Amino acid sequence: MITGKNYIGKQRSGKGNVIYKTFNPQLNIENKPIYTEATLEEINKAVTLAANAFKIFRAVSGEQKATFLNAIADEILNLDDELIKVYCSETGLPEGRAKGERGRTVGQLRSFADLVKEGSWVEATIDTSIPDREPIPKADIRKMNIPLGPVVVFGASNFPLAYSTAGGDTAAALAAGCPVIVKSHPMHAGTGELVASAIINAAEKTNMPNGVFSNLNSSGIEVGVQLVKHPDVKAVGFTGSIRAGRALYDLAAKRKEPIPVFAEMGSINPVIMLPNVLKNRSESLAKTYASSITLGTGQFCTNPGLIIGLKGNDLTNFITMLANEIVKIEPSCMLHPNIYGAYESNKAKAIAQPELRVVANYDTDVKENYARQAITTVEGKTFLANTTLHQEVFGPFSMVVQCESIKQMEAIISNLEGQLTGTLIADDEAEKYSNIISALQNRVGRVIYNGVPTGVEVCPSMVHGGPYPASTDSRFTAVGVDSIKRFVRPFSFQDWPNELLPDELKNENPLNITRIVNGKLTNQKV
Amino acid sequence: MITGKNYIGKQRSGKGNVIYKTFNPQLNIENKPIYTEATLEEINKAVTLAANAFKIFRAVSGEQKATFLNAIADEILNLDDELIKVYCSETGLPEGRAKGERGRTVGQLRSFADLVKEGSWVEATIDTSIPDREPIPKADIRKMNIPLGPVVVFGASNFPLAYSTAGGDTAAALAAGCPVIVKSHPMHAGTGELVASAIINAAEKTNMPNGVFSNLNSSGIEVGVQLVKHPDVKAVGFTGSIRAGRALYDLAAKRKEPIPVFAEMGSINPVIMLPNVLKNRSESLAKTYASSITLGTGQFCTNPGLIIGLKGNDLTNFITMLANEIVKIEPSCMLHPNIYGAYESNKAKAIAQPELRVVANYDTDVKENYARQAITTVEGKTFLANTTLHQEVFGPFSMVVQCESIKQMEAIISNLEGQLTGTLIADDEAEKYSNIISALQNRVGRVIYNGVPTGVEVCPSMVHGGPYPASTDSRFTAVGVDSIKRFVRPFSFQDWPNELLPDELKNENPLNITRIVNGKLTNQKV
Repeated sequence: MITGKNYIGKQRSGKGNVIYKTFNPQLNIENKPIYTEATLEEINKAVTLAANAFKIFRAVSGEQKATFLNAIADEILNLDDELIKVYCSETGLPEGRAKGERGRTVGQLRSFADLVKEGSWVEATIDTSIPDREPIPKADIRKMNIPLGPVVVFGASNFPLAYSTAGGDTAAALAAGCPVIVKSHPMHAGTGELVASAIINAAEKTNMPNGVFSNLNSSGIEVGVQLVKHPDVKAVGFTGSIRAGRALYDLAAKRKEPIPVFAEMGSINPVIMLPNVLKNRSESLAKTYASSITLGTGQFCTNPGLIIGLKGNDLTNFITMLANEIVKIEPSCMLHPNIYGAYESNKAKAIAQPELRVVANYDTDVKENYARQAITTVEGKTFLANTTLHQEVFGPFSMVVQCESIKQMEAIISNLEGQLTGTLIADDEAEKYSNIISALQNRVGRVIYNGVPTGVEVCPSMVHGGPYPASTDSRFTAVGVDSIKRFVRPFSFQDWPNELLPDELKNENPLNITRIVNGKLTNQKV
Repeated sequence: MITGKNYIGKQRSGKGNVIYKTFNPQLNIENKPIYTEATLEEINKAVTLAANAFKIFRAVSGEQKATFLNAIADEILNLDDELIKVYCSETGLPEGRAKGERGRTVGQLRSFADLVKEGSWVEATIDTSIPDREPIPKADIRKMNIPLGPVVVFGASNFPLAYSTAGGDTAAALAAGCPVIVKSHPMHAGTGELVASAIINAAEKTNMPNGVFSNLNSSGIEVGVQLVKHPDVKAVGFTGSIRAGRALYDLAAKRKEPIPVFAEMGSINPVIMLPNVLKNRSESLAKTYASSITLGTGQFCTNPGLIIGLKGNDLTNFITMLANEIVKIEPSCMLHPNIYGAYESNKAKAIAQPELRVVANYDTDVKENYARQAITTVEGKTFLANTTLHQEVFGPFSMVVQCESIKQMEAIISNLEGQLTGTLIADDEAEKYSNIISALQNRVGRVIYNGVPTGVEVCPSMVHGGPYPASTDSRFTAVGVDSIKRFVRPFSFQDWPNELLPDELKNENPLNITRIVNGKLTNQKV
């Protein structure tokens, strides 16, 4: 049941005066529940509870953490239809998407549960002593990853489940042993509260310390700002716009003790179409890309916003086909009137740039908050000179850049800001374009061959991140079990008595994990 | 031969007007060579060369990088007595220390050579495709670590070899595949130039691209500032003071594209002496700690600047013995008159704090630039209330804090800033003090049992780093082969053709490295 209150640890609390509602973009009306923004007192209480919980939670075993994470997954599934209904009412997204995203969220939680239950993720490394080494004896040193402390997670507008309350950031932080305080996204506060209740239930059922999780409502920026500034907060996970992500990064960097902010932000996801492809299979590519550009109303951070090809008849044909295909697709609803408004104004801003040509702009009447997809095209020279054209238009929008030469194509790629993905569409010709591939690799976190960038597989080999501004720290991924590394630090014990060591580092290897002992990977005891 | 010029790639260049000399603190005179600070033009040229070199160097094989790193080690050894002489003339340190540090530097280079030659450090992770998965097929995704780009390394005053020109940061960055631009430390510009010449010779002999390494002279902060602001610089390694490290961090955080700064900064390295110990072996501990506090004239970042014990006769006896032992030790020379001056003024500032008692202060006449060691003591309450007492006094200085209770001891530890190390001195009593241990672990990067914090073993299990301000990013170590992780980012290939993949990710595993294939660690082919 939705109460509109915050979770300060396991306590529901709503002491504030700032209230707000969510919005149903399909019906174009406000939803009924009233949410109360967290007060400064509630924020501070949540962080203090988290700092206290950390003293216990940091030492909770991998097996217990796995039980907790699996219980969260179970409790989310127990929310059943209520969750799906509230999700749809707050996003305008269809039921199938809601269920798919729930499946992904549950899957993520379980994959982190498996990871910490198995236990080798701590990267235990042991170098035993050499007492008779000359000129000085060598000490026994043992290292493993330990959690950073309380983590603040910002809910994302476009993934109310998979990147929000119990999404990838929360799952990774809890798996690491870090308590989590979620700054709930105002557009889906109800979905957030339901998922928060699932986490709180799971925490109680599995005897986790009070404060291991809190959920704070917020209608604007103030709650987030207070959280990031709080000295007991030790890291931040964020998915959203470059402006907001950068503001949080700046705030965290200015603290007396700066803390890591892992913000996954904008991306236009360049797609390079090599010449043979455009000769051989423009039609199927046009269909595939019309579909990828409009998938989820274009509201994915991996949406292909930029297509780059060599100028000529083949590219012209492709552009025509893409334009024809995309207007065949029925427009769909955006997440919120504000997101719809931003789409229309960003699209208008792009279209207003000199020498940009609109080749498709869905012009039949559509329902309120439904996005009209658009395709534009521009000369390589113009694109290179005008960085306004490099900005993301969040929604079903893409731009085709027509390059004079491969050299110009390379220059365009090299001058792009950092991106999450880069796609190469090629027909047995890629070897000839090593400079293009090399330039692309230098600007992105993931390259895709003959596919589409939309669709982010949750698996250990996934990198969801990339050079700034795709993310604020390209050294980490936001998706996949390795995202746990964002929230841990290595820690060494020197000549520490075996009985006082954590199980992961004890001689007898009671957890039977894989460790590096004197340079060798092994499951054996020392 | 020392020319006083910069290395802009392999070219010696000295176009500037700002000149300076190094100083021999033992003789208290300037050394003869004249160094020319790099100009803005030279700085920009070095970075541009590095960015161009990166296009080639990033794809150089692990085996070739190993050859390069080993050649650097060989060339450093070839400098032989000239290097040792110049080192001693610029630091006041004895020949034995110079040779020891050279051995460590060469050892570090060779350990990174071994790491990249073996190759598994890239953490190759492969998830093969499942074309018939429902509801959508699973793509083939493969991940590995790739280098960030040009790295700027700041030489450290107190380790002219091991943490400077060809020190740990440079070795880690080159091993990762990142070109390096060193901002030479002005106090040992001659040592820096000699080592730079060794790196340049090694680069030429092993056919590395021009620009893979540059060495820039600088007398003040300007060269460093320009380097950190340059858009083609992608990461920074620094060892030095909190003030300088924080300034660089702030500068990097304010860039349009913020970059990671790994700054290893100050630490007072708390040592906790539990009650039994003080009863049982105060005398030997006093000797051990008098020696650790004065080792290298106290100019180590792991110097034990803070000793914490329970107030009482046993602690009083220990303090007396420590005071007696430390004045028996002959004072030694500091690195530079400025460092000597800072030591004396920081010591005076600490001593001037109310309620601080000086129990030892070497008062016999000493030579110029020789540091007079000192021991002070203070009540727990006073220490807690006065954070000036928490500041590092870089040199042979330590403070003994006398706690009223174990609870106060825990509060003192919890209120410390982040530290590189924490030491526990205990006699079969540690289990009773789990709160103390837990508090200590939360503030440091490495704990030591019944030892001294000085002496940083270079091995895979070492963590040299810790919560801020011990370092700006506790998620990484500055020492040991894992320090390579500071300068790489994970990168994914999706459905990429086998022949276009880097060798590390090819089906046939031509490098025979250990990879995670579909969740299993293996050396097998896919």
